[in-house]
This record gives sequence, structure tokens and C-alpha cells, in this order.
Amino acid sequence: MAGAMDAELAIAAAKAGALAALPAGMLDAEQLRAQVAQFRSATADKPINLNFLAHKMPTPSNAREHAWREVLKPYYVELGIDPGVPVPAITRAPFEAAMCTVVEELRPEVVSFHYGLPDAMLIARVKAAGCKVISSATTVREARFLEASGCDAVIAQGLEAGGHRGMFLSDDVATQIGLFALLPQVADAVKIPVIAAGGIGDARAIVAALTLGAAGVLLGTAFLFCPEAKPLPPHRAALREARDDSTVLTNVLSGRPARGLVNRVIRELGPISEIAPEFPLAAGALSPLHAKAQALGSGDFSPMLAGQAAALGRDMPAGTLVEKLAAEAQDMLRRMAS
Amino acid sequence: MAGAMDAELAIAAAKAGALAALPAGMLDAEQLRAQVAQFRSATADKPINLNFLAHKMPTPSNAREHAWREVLKPYYVELGIDPGVPVPAITRAPFEAAMCTVVEELRPEVVSFHYGLPDAMLIARVKAAGCKVISSATTVREARFLEASGCDAVIAQGLEAGGHRGMFLSDDVATQIGLFALLPQVADAVKIPVIAAGGIGDARAIVAALTLGAAGVLLGTAFLFCPEAKPLPPHRAALREARDDSTVLTNVLSGRPARGLVNRVIRELGPISEIAPEFPLAAGALSPLHAKAQALGSGDFSPMLAGQAAALGRDMPAGTLVEKLAAEAQDMLRRMAS
Repeated sequence: MAGAMDAELAIAAAKAGALAALPAGMLDAEQLRAQVAQFRSATADKPINLNFLAHKMPTPSNAREHAWREVLKPYYVELGIDPGVPVPAITRAPFEAAMCTVVEELRPEVVSFHYGLPDAMLIARVKAAGCKVISSATTVREARFLEASGCDAVIAQGLEAGGHRGMFLSDDVATQIGLFALLPQVADAVKIPVIAAGGIGDARAIVAALTLGAAGVLLGTAFLFCPEAKPLPPHRAALREARDDSTVLTNVLSGRPARGLVNRVIRELGPISEIAPEFPLAAGALSPLHAKAQALGSGDFSPMLAGQAAALGRDMPAGTLVEKLAAEAQDMLRRMAS
Repeated sequence: MAGAMDAELAIAAAKAGALAALPAGMLDAEQLRAQVAQFRSATADKPINLNFLAHKMPTPSNAREHAWREVLKPYYVELGIDPGVPVPAITRAPFEAAMCTVVEELRPEVVSFHYGLPDAMLIARVKAAGCKVISSATTVREARFLEASGCDAVIAQGLEAGGHRGMFLSDDVATQIGLFALLPQVADAVKIPVIAAGGIGDARAIVAALTLGAAGVLLGTAFLFCPEAKPLPPHRAALREARDDSTVLTNVLSGRPARGLVNRVIRELGPISEIAPEFPLAAGALSPLHAKAQALGSGDFSPMLAGQAAALGRDMPAGTLVEKLAAEAQDMLRRMAS
């Protein structure tokens, strides 16, 4: 949930008993140190999960970048932005040696990755620092790969999930799998604990995930409704209007498939564009449009990521949400027992 | 499961206590009467669900048909089939007045539809004949439509499901929903019972579906592994090799999105083709290729429909499967209760 949350949400969730994740993929070392310090001081050292990206940075292609800017040019003109304006540097860096040193210094209880794993040497350093390592699998093959690479747990990310697909052994979105089918197959395939993600909006889904073989669950979209989360205003407004069929997988926001609420740029250019440069480069030329539209109160060009259970979201403090979900899930289990 | 089963599978499932469905969308009145008679005599009048299609027949377009044949022509040449050979008539007819008369005569306990519902007048006749009416919803909006149209129950068809998408208020596959997110939202939206379908491969999934709000479950792919089912030999072989990511939604087999095991025609022309004529017309020009390849033992051009939980399939008689699923689900519920 990089860009839509910071330590404030993590603190509130952790205090209520959740293992809180802090998205670190868009932070530099100083920002990360500051957020972890804030978290630890506010929670009296509750466990924390730092989440990093494990993509390979693509070699920028001038031709592709040019084509993408040509596609976006009419929007620049419409919004009164100079199409020649320099595009801001992309802030989504993969996990590398320098950040690994920061992890060794901060020693979070858990380090999670998205888009596979960084080099084995880095994984070894993270584990030597005492951190548990987890990553997302979107197929059984990816889950087996993560287990064989030394992960302590694996996240089974169903097709319903909001945000970027963690897929890394295939780039074919057509064969991605719904959680109902993925979760039991992943649970059968690996010995490490499986954490279910995707479309888990309430206690019913938590109990269902446990039934299908999960040892735990990961909720993202449900927390975007909390006052401690920081989705931009059009994103928050769109979340409140979300229906079951309001999201799609799109690559136009960043260059990688991500599930988000359909907005103008997705509707008009996507959801899947062959022209969008590779992740994270596509976000570059989009960002002036995002910033300008955003300032006008519009989410037309913004990443408004959300999963397919967004409509189940409830507007309440994160601590209350964690406690309610836990209590409701336990209630359900008790009722099933009687 | 039209084309991959007949009364034999329905009989075996019904005898073990399941509500068996008989696919009637590709049968004429005589064939249907014969199968229902066979079912009733073999099961001592167990309840039966007759399943029909509720699409509108498209107006054939010569231009589109020609374009489709041009796309397929290299395959005709490769397989030594005259590209000018007359294409067999399509046998997938929508439910109309004549078939309604047969239903009034046969009075099945349940009539289910796919692709929405036929005209209200026909629904009224089916209900007046004492049949319960059900249909598939792929979104909350479709579920509400079906309830408002008088359905006695609704099937929530998750994106994981094998076979054709039942979608009828939208043709946008990009917004279709995984069962984990769809099922609780449908259960919240309607008062009629919800039957879960899609990616339900074993007892874990049955219990999870009940947890998410289902009153019952619909399994399809799981029964294709039974000796009483009649998938063509390459289909059965491909089912046994299926992995979690072996299927896609494709429209090249029939003109409508259906989930099937990826084969050559899907890989080379799809999964989604703009050229494929509307359902069911695309299947026409494909059928000589299907027949010829099939005779050579190949499923390159065949519809090998399957859901995302195909890899959980177990090769056993349908009666044993029904009994095992029921016993295992009850066991799970008991274990959760202790």
C-alpha cells in the first residue's frame, strides 16, 4: 500500500494485535529509519513487517518512452501541462545492498518482498539479521520457488487482490488464479505457512481462508477505509462507491499489472496497454497528469488501487477494525462449533 | 457440461444424494425426453435439474464469418480439410417455447439457465409447471436481477469456474470477480439461497463456501474425472495434467468467454479474439478442425473446459466422489467444532 499509508496506520493495526506491514519500496533510508522509529516508540516495540519490491529495474527504451508520451500527450494538452516538462524520477527502487544494510541495522521481525525475491546473497543477509522472510506467490510454481529459496512463509495472492500482482515467474495475467482455487493448491504444495491475500473483506472470508489451508490472512483494501490510512481524496471517495465489479487488472498506472478502481486513464488506455513502458517507468510520464488532476480533486489519472471486496469496507479506526475482525471470526468459529 | 456428460453421470451423482444437473442446451426434445426417462428409471425418480441456455441467437454476419474462416484456413490446410467444406449447424439453441412445452411435460424439479434468463412468459410457464428456477450471476447486479426476475436461487459463479461465464448484464471479462470476493457480496445482496460455483475442488472449498454465505455448492470440473463423465480422450488426458495455472478465459472456442485448458487454438488465436463470431457461431468453423484433430487423438482444436481447481480432481466413480465430499466436509465441520 505504498503511497496510501505510512507508520500511522501500521501503529494503529499493531497496537490492536495485527502484524503490521510498512511499505518501504518508495522510501529512502532516512524515511524508513524515521518511520520504524516512530512505529517502535508508539507501539512499545511491537513486531513489524517491512515490505520491499524485488523487481529488476528495466533498461529505459527511448522509443517506448516516446510512444507512451505520445499516447498521453492529449491529456497533457487538455490539462494545460507542457508535454515537454521533465518527468520526475521514479521512486520505486528494488531492494538492493544499501537498503539491506538498513534492514540489518533496523532488524524488523519480518521482511516481505513483492515480485519475487532479491539475490540469494541479500536474502541470506536478511535472514542472518534475524528477520523472517516472506514473499507473494500467485501460482503453485511461485510458491514452490519461494519455499525452495528459503522463505519462512508464503503469501498466496488471489486474483481478487488489490494492488500489484506479485507474479514473477510468468507475466501472463490470463492464467492468474482466484483465491478459492489457489489457496488449497498452494497449501498442498508447500510445507511453510501460507498467508491468504485477495478479496478478504470481513470475518467470513478470514474463516474461509483458514478453512482452505491458510495459517493467516493479509488484508489491504479493508484498511484503506480507516482514518489512519492516507489514500488521496479521490481514491477514498472512489473506495466508498466501489461495487464488486469496479476494479480491473491494469498495467497503465505503472507498467505492471495491478488491480485498481477503474478511472478515466484505465478506461481510455487500458486496462492492458502494449505501449506502457516496463514497471516502474510507465508511472513517470503519468505523474504530472496525476498531480494536476489530483489538485483539481480528480482521480482520473491516479492509481486508486483496491481489491474486489472493496465494497465490504467499513469506515472505522484500524484498531477497531482489527479487533472487530478477530472477534467476529472467533464468533463464527464458535457458532460453527455449536 | 454439455458435450462432456450425459444421463449416466447425472444418475451416479443423484443416487449418491446430489442434485444432478443434465445439460440440455445441446439436446433436441427427443434426446432430452430419453435422457430424463433413463435418469428417472435408474434413480427411482430422484430430483433432476435440467440446464438450458438463455442467450439471444446473433444475426450471422457474412463478413465476420469470412474473417473467422480466413483466420482458421491455415489450420484447415494443415489438417488436409477442404476450407470450402460446409460447416455443421450449431446445436446450441436458446430456450424457447417449444422446449418449454417439453419442460412442462417432463416437470423436472429444477430448471437452471445460463446467460441470464429467457423471456418472462417462459419463466412463468416453467414456474407454473412446478419447477424451481435458478440461474448464474457473475456480479451482484446480475444476482439482484435474477432475484427480481423470480429466481428461486442464484448461482454465484466465481471467475475460477470452468466452462462458459454466465455473464449477461456485461460482456467485460476484465471486471469479472473471484469467488472469494463475489460470494459474500452476493449473499449480502439477495434473500434467495446462493449456490457457490467456481474453483470448488474438494471438501475444504465446500466448507469455505458455506462459511462465505453459500447455501449449497455446484461442482463441475471435479466430476469430469469420473468414469461416468464423457470428456473426449484428449480432454480427459489434459485434465489429468492440469495445474493451477493451466486454464484461461477464452472466446475462440464458441464466441463467448469460457474457461478451458490452454490448447493450441487458444494459444495461437486467443485467448480473446476480436474476430471470433458471436456465440455460438464461432464454434461452427472450428468444428471440422476439432473433429479431425480429435480423430488423430489431439485436443488442439477442442473445447477442453475446466476450472482453476482441476488439479484437485480425483479419479473415482461419481457416487463415491459425492459421498467422499459430503463425508469430508462434515468431518471438517466437526473438527472445527472441537
